[in-house]
This record gives sequence, C-alpha cells and structure tokens, in this order.
Amino acid sequence: MTFASLPDFKSLLGAAPQPDMDARSAAAARNGQLTKPQGSLGRLEDIATWFAGWAGTERPRIERPQVIIFAGNHGVTAQGVSAFPPEVTVQMVANFEHGGAAINQLSKNAGASMSVHAIDLDRPTADFTQAPAMSEAECVAALRVGWNAVEAGADVVVVGEMGIGNTTSAAAIAGALFGGTPADWVGRGTGVDDAGLAIKTRVVAEGVARHGELDPLGILCALGGRELAAMAGAIARARTLRIPVILDGFICTAAAATLAKAVDGALDHCVAGHVSAEAAHGRLLGALGKEPILSLGLRLGEGSGAALALPIVKAALACHSDMATFAQAGVSTG
Amino acid sequence: MTFASLPDFKSLLGAAPQPDMDARSAAAARNGQLTKPQGSLGRLEDIATWFAGWAGTERPRIERPQVIIFAGNHGVTAQGVSAFPPEVTVQMVANFEHGGAAINQLSKNAGASMSVHAIDLDRPTADFTQAPAMSEAECVAALRVGWNAVEAGADVVVVGEMGIGNTTSAAAIAGALFGGTPADWVGRGTGVDDAGLAIKTRVVAEGVARHGELDPLGILCALGGRELAAMAGAIARARTLRIPVILDGFICTAAAATLAKAVDGALDHCVAGHVSAEAAHGRLLGALGKEPILSLGLRLGEGSGAALALPIVKAALACHSDMATFAQAGVSTG
Repeated sequence: MTFASLPDFKSLLGAAPQPDMDARSAAAARNGQLTKPQGSLGRLEDIATWFAGWAGTERPRIERPQVIIFAGNHGVTAQGVSAFPPEVTVQMVANFEHGGAAINQLSKNAGASMSVHAIDLDRPTADFTQAPAMSEAECVAALRVGWNAVEAGADVVVVGEMGIGNTTSAAAIAGALFGGTPADWVGRGTGVDDAGLAIKTRVVAEGVARHGELDPLGILCALGGRELAAMAGAIARARTLRIPVILDGFICTAAAATLAKAVDGALDHCVAGHVSAEAAHGRLLGALGKEPILSLGLRLGEGSGAALALPIVKAALACHSDMATFAQAGVSTG
Repeated sequence: MTFASLPDFKSLLGAAPQPDMDARSAAAARNGQLTKPQGSLGRLEDIATWFAGWAGTERPRIERPQVIIFAGNHGVTAQGVSAFPPEVTVQMVANFEHGGAAINQLSKNAGASMSVHAIDLDRPTADFTQAPAMSEAECVAALRVGWNAVEAGADVVVVGEMGIGNTTSAAAIAGALFGGTPADWVGRGTGVDDAGLAIKTRVVAEGVARHGELDPLGILCALGGRELAAMAGAIARARTLRIPVILDGFICTAAAATLAKAVDGALDHCVAGHVSAEAAHGRLLGALGKEPILSLGLRLGEGSGAALALPIVKAALACHSDMATFAQAGVSTG
C-alpha cells in the first residue's frame, strides 16, 4: 500500500477498517466480571475496552510499543517566532540519537522502542507568510516518511516531533481548521517573550489569511512542516493497520487534526496522552472531542507527554487482561 | 526503634529527619542544565527535585519500589454502610495473595514488590457509633504492623488498603479532623445506594459527635480501623527513614491526615498519587495542600491510584537523572 498524491492518501485513510466490535463487546463483558466494584477503575476501564476493539482481542496487551520522532526545520523561524535558534533542531536530533533527551528516558521507562527521522533539515520549509510551506510533492514525501515508519507489529504507537518554530505552524493549522482569532491558538511555545509572542500572533494571522481556505490536507501542506506531515502520515498508517495511537501535545494534535477534518473517524484509534501547558492544546483537544489522560504542565514536545501516558495505558490493559473474575476468585459480588 | 504507646509514636515521628537540602539544591541546579526549555517538563521537574531531597542524592532513581497492602474489618458494617458484605475483605485478601486483584497487576506494571498484611480480620473493630473502634493498645499494635512492614532498602513506598466499610471510617476521621458537615465527607464508596448513603451520613455524624474532640491520634484509634492505623504507621516509618511515599485515595489520605494533624510536616515526604472519584478525597487533599498527580476517576482503593502514579514518578526521576545537559550534548541554550 502506498500513495503518490494527497487524494490517494485521503482514499487510503478513508478505506481504513473499523475496530472489531465483537472484541470490544467481549472486553466490555469481561470488564463487568473483574474483582472490583463496577466502574471503580474509572478511565482505565474505558481505555481497555476501547483498546480491545482496535487490537481485535478481548484481552489485549502491550508488548511492542513504538515511539517515532520526526524532525523538520521551518522557514518561518526567520521572522523571530522562537526563543531558540533553528540550529537547535539538528542539535537535538543528535541528542536523541545519543540517548540524552527526555524522550529517550521516557521511552525506556515505558519499555518502548524509539526511532528518529530527521527530514531534510538542511531544506527548511518556506516561510508560510510568503508561500506555501511545502509543495504537494514535498508534503506527500513527508507523509510517506511517517507512513513507512510505523512497524506493522507494533501494538501501540507514539509519534513526536522536534522542529524549532513548529508551535507557530501548529497554531496556524489550528486557526485555519477551526477558526477563532490567532490569539486563541498562539502561546509561548518553548518560552518566547512578549515581543516574540506578538510576532508569532501576526505571523499566524498572515498564514491563516493566505492559506486558510484550503482543504484540510492542503492546510497541512501550506502551513505545516515536514515533521507535522510525517506525524500525520504515521497516524494514518496506524489507522489502516488498526494500531492504537497515543497523541502527544499541541503540534502532534494539530497534525492529527488535519486528518480528522479530512476524513470522519480518522482519529478514532487515537487517545490523548496529555494536555500540555500550551493553552491552545486544551482548546484543540476539546474541538476534537479528546479527553487527555494526563495534565502535568508539560510543554516539551518530542512525544514526551504521550510516552509518559504509555505506562498508564499499559496499566489499564494489565488490569483488564490479567485480573481475576469474581467467579475465579470466589469473591462475593455484593 | 519502636514504640509502646501513642505518645511514644508521636515522639518518634516528631524526631524524624528533614530532607537533605544540599541534595535538593544540587538537583534543582542540575534541572536547569538539562536539554529542554526551562520548566518544560512541568510537574515532573518538581517531583524530581522534591524526591532528590528525601533520597539524599542529586540524581535519585527508583529501583526498589514497595507496595504494602493492609486489610482490616469494621464493626460499623453492621449498620449497613457498604454495598458489599464484610466477608469480601478476607476474600479479597486471598485474591491479593493469588495475584488476581487490580493492585497485583498495577504493582507488576510498575516493577514494584507487593506484600499483604491481613490484620485480625476475625476481630472487627468496634462499631464507632457505640464505642471507640480500637483501644489505644489495639491501635498501637496496628501502627506497629505498618511500621514494621516498611523495608529500610525501599526507595519509594505505596500503602494501600482493603476493608469493607472503610470509607465510612475515613469520612468520620476527616470530619473529626477538619470539621464541616458529614455530607462534605461522605460519598458512595464502592457504590452504596441512596438508602445506604443516608445511613452512612448518619453514622458518620454520630461517630464525629462521640469522638470528634479527641486529639488526632485519638481520632485514629476511635474512628479508624486496623488497616488505617497500619497505613499511618507505615507512612510514619517511611518519614523516619526519609523514604518518599505516594499517597493513594480517600482512606489512605484520611489515615495520613491524622499524622499531619499530630505533627507538623509529617507528610512532607508524601506526594498525592491521584484524586479519586470520591468527592471528599479532593477536599481532603486540598486541606492537606497536596496536588494529585493523576485524576482518572478511580475509586478502588488497594493502593491502586498510587501504584498507577508510580511509573510517572519513575519517569520524572529517569528524565532528571539520565538526560544530557546542554553542555554534554552541545545544544544551544537560546
């Protein structure tokens, strides 16, 4: 399965299979028989039942979680939208490769494999206030990097990103997809000052004015970045493989949102790992109807919030799949 | 170190050491040098710095987490305060011992050892609407069970409980310690119906009226249960050993609150693992100034919410202790 254009990509995503409702029903029935008061594991019960449908089994387990990090550079950084210089993107990719970043520790903590895909870092996207960030061909190439990065044997996927300037890209995408004012979607990112925030707000307004009327995947091309397109490609590929995905922060969720707007149900296999300190992230999750698992004030990206939620999802499945039933344990049901 | 009376116990707790402020300062300095924007790991950064002080090292790790479950029976169940019959306590202890309960899966998921201490299940406490639940000698004996259960080599401790009827006990303790109306502290526990809730509210009012003027450890004796006293004993022992504790739900927190009211700073080594669906738990955490790590609608007890938070605390330490610094990684600081 592959694609050579945005319409091809959209067709593949639209043809993705639904969850296995028999497995889901069997999981829900099992949940009611486990040795605990009904509903007492709260959100964990919902996560386990949902996961069972996508995994296609009554008692799912996570044994091969995959964390995939994509990196890209953004032409819009020339406008002064970030607190960090663009060369930090390539420096942080080296840090990922040497095991020194937060996501390395979080992946290890969660027992996940981790891979890093630096996409054409020496070719930043165009400044989207001047031109589309990517041509369709560039966007399709980045989508394919993500699509091909997903291992068919993974049982859950986390996608993350590194790209100086990419909260500006995410804010522009969110504004183009969901409307509102630029201020609704712009925040301090990695820590921009008041002057930087004013620039960022203006840049987002200009980007939305220039490209906001495009269709959702056109918005991804025109306002996104290579790492955002790659995340979208990986999330779409996971959807076609029926592999659950844990969404990370604002940038990941903005990339994912282009899929949801392009194809109904495109994110039904996704759970929100966390809500970040970037205020627009909570707004965006609300627009997508996604309730975050964690709310711990993270604002790092890299897939960090999703990888942090991975042990919670594993815990949900461990309880669901390995607890005794009332009958097995000889416990009275009240 | 041991104790034969409540005043002895209180003296030991009062003489417990403070955290190592040099280690804490070194950890805070290290945190500022790690390859991430300042503050971008949010709550994880606070947890790591706090933990470093108690562990007495700049780069703490969790390698020997200990989960300890205590079980007790409550005379007050005769009044009809629970949706489950009291024999479920001993049935669930067997389930813990056979590995079938939620806490077994959550302990395994977190890489923690787990032990279960069933305390005199064939001798329920007295109905506290008629008499003190425990004599001082009985309470001291239960405190000692908890005290002796903590392994000196543990690097973090979770305490949990099983005891049909014990949300009633916890509500009475909270009301006696913090005032307010019984309705402020009474909830549905494992799932009591409206009639049961009305009984529970009356029972709590009667218990507080009868014993509410006692000092905090007297309240633990008169309104608590053996598993609550044991949790208090374990938390106190961890305090003297400077081992951080992750608090679980309403019952665990009510037991802990008697220590906080008895000795200033008695819970400085404790972090709140979660806030449960029992509304009184959030209120109680607020009274203690503790911000929960998780909020996932759990209401199971057994240490489940704390064990679920353990991978988050481990993740905080993994990032803090194992990430590269800007200098090590050659990353620009902006």
